[in-house]
Amino acid sequence: MNPTINLLKSHRSIRKFKDQQIPRQLLEALIQAGQSAATSNHVQAYSIIHVVNPANRQRIAELAGGQPYVANSSDFLVFCADMKRSTDAAERAGAEVVRGMTEQLLVASIDAALMAQNVLIAAESAGLGGCYIGGIRNNPQDVSDLLKLPDNVYPVFGLCLGYPDQNPEVKPRLPLAAILKQDYYDDAEDQALVARFDDTMARYYSQRTGSNKSTNWSEQLKPLFTSKLRPHMKAFLNKRGFGLK
Amino acid sequence: MNPTINLLKSHRSIRKFKDQQIPRQLLEALIQAGQSAATSNHVQAYSIIHVVNPANRQRIAELAGGQPYVANSSDFLVFCADMKRSTDAAERAGAEVVRGMTEQLLVASIDAALMAQNVLIAAESAGLGGCYIGGIRNNPQDVSDLLKLPDNVYPVFGLCLGYPDQNPEVKPRLPLAAILKQDYYDDAEDQALVARFDDTMARYYSQRTGSNKSTNWSEQLKPLFTSKLRPHMKAFLNKRGFGLK
Repeated sequence: MNPTINLLKSHRSIRKFKDQQIPRQLLEALIQAGQSAATSNHVQAYSIIHVVNPANRQRIAELAGGQPYVANSSDFLVFCADMKRSTDAAERAGAEVVRGMTEQLLVASIDAALMAQNVLIAAESAGLGGCYIGGIRNNPQDVSDLLKLPDNVYPVFGLCLGYPDQNPEVKPRLPLAAILKQDYYDDAEDQALVARFDDTMARYYSQRTGSNKSTNWSEQLKPLFTSKLRPHMKAFLNKRGFGLK
Repeated sequence: MNPTINLLKSHRSIRKFKDQQIPRQLLEALIQAGQSAATSNHVQAYSIIHVVNPANRQRIAELAGGQPYVANSSDFLVFCADMKRSTDAAERAGAEVVRGMTEQLLVASIDAALMAQNVLIAAESAGLGGCYIGGIRNNPQDVSDLLKLPDNVYPVFGLCLGYPDQNPEVKPRLPLAAILKQDYYDDAEDQALVARFDDTMARYYSQRTGSNKSTNWSEQLKPLFTSKLRPHMKAFLNKRGFGLK
């Protein structure tokens, strides 16, 4: 279609990086591109911690469930949902502020995601690669302590960035017909489309370079949903000021 | 820096559109670009409702708090967080599935946001413009009923897309120094940077073409935080299967 759409469609997670730092000027351009994303009511409900200290990166790699690229990538960013800056500003301007609404959790998490996606796309447009690290929510309190996050700020995910030292394939996605529905959520066809996608993924997993395995999409999802996924999140968010009110 | 970064940095919300439909082939390319975004554990926890029915678009424009561009844009998409497709698939594959975890709300909302941002960037790269409609969360149950969303699916935001019939300025963003912090969340400087940004926004609001006003960032935020923001969201999500467990 055009170079930007081709770039978007060629995304794959990069987890192996050359030993090469991202120049500060480029890093700042990526963050500025991130800040240009749409933001709910102009709140800009995010902060980014650029984790430079090697011991802290090693610690977060462990806290995220043993993901060495957190320590080995050129740069590692933690995207935080930040309801502190904006509510503090409104308070200083004289407002009696209500915090801890479920809606504020959504606003801040979505704001952080929109801006992060811009950062990653900007990075990929400059020849960098990266991968999100949702694993920091395995131990969100320890990560928050390490980064000295105040109340009303929580770490949503990390992002490893750097110069790719691998060239993995693009992973297939669900058929467009499953995702894009007209006027109503009609899932009459969904089951057949998921079955087709299971076949696609079975082929992908059996043929891909690297770790071949005999599985498919549905099978891969099973362990994710049979246990309570990160059951600490509710209490954690509550404690940090995202009260789910 | 490069054309893609320049594109990202030139984003502004478009709310006035030419009377011109987006060709189906281009729309599908935008959605495919969206699907290429990173997704937590390959879950792809989203569905999109392309609202074509004019009466439904008019109704959603009202439900979103009176936003006429929902009805007047070339195309209108509702991005849904979808935990139904993936958990149903795991269940059919034999898993005893746990639903309703707070973490699943985050995974699906973030997945939807990452994919939506790709769609918007792809659209902007093709000469289109758009704006997100968080206002559909004003009346999320009515919107869900209208779109016949099943349990474990909720409407996160809408997106108006089309060929721009206006050329608004790019809105300033917080200073980079406030957003990007090294190693720790140090907010010693934040207050001064917010004050500087208040001046920036006061100048912007007084000088911009269109609706001039005397205000600043902190003042603009006050009404947003003095009332309970969308207080129905917790009960709504609970009812839809996003139990906040």
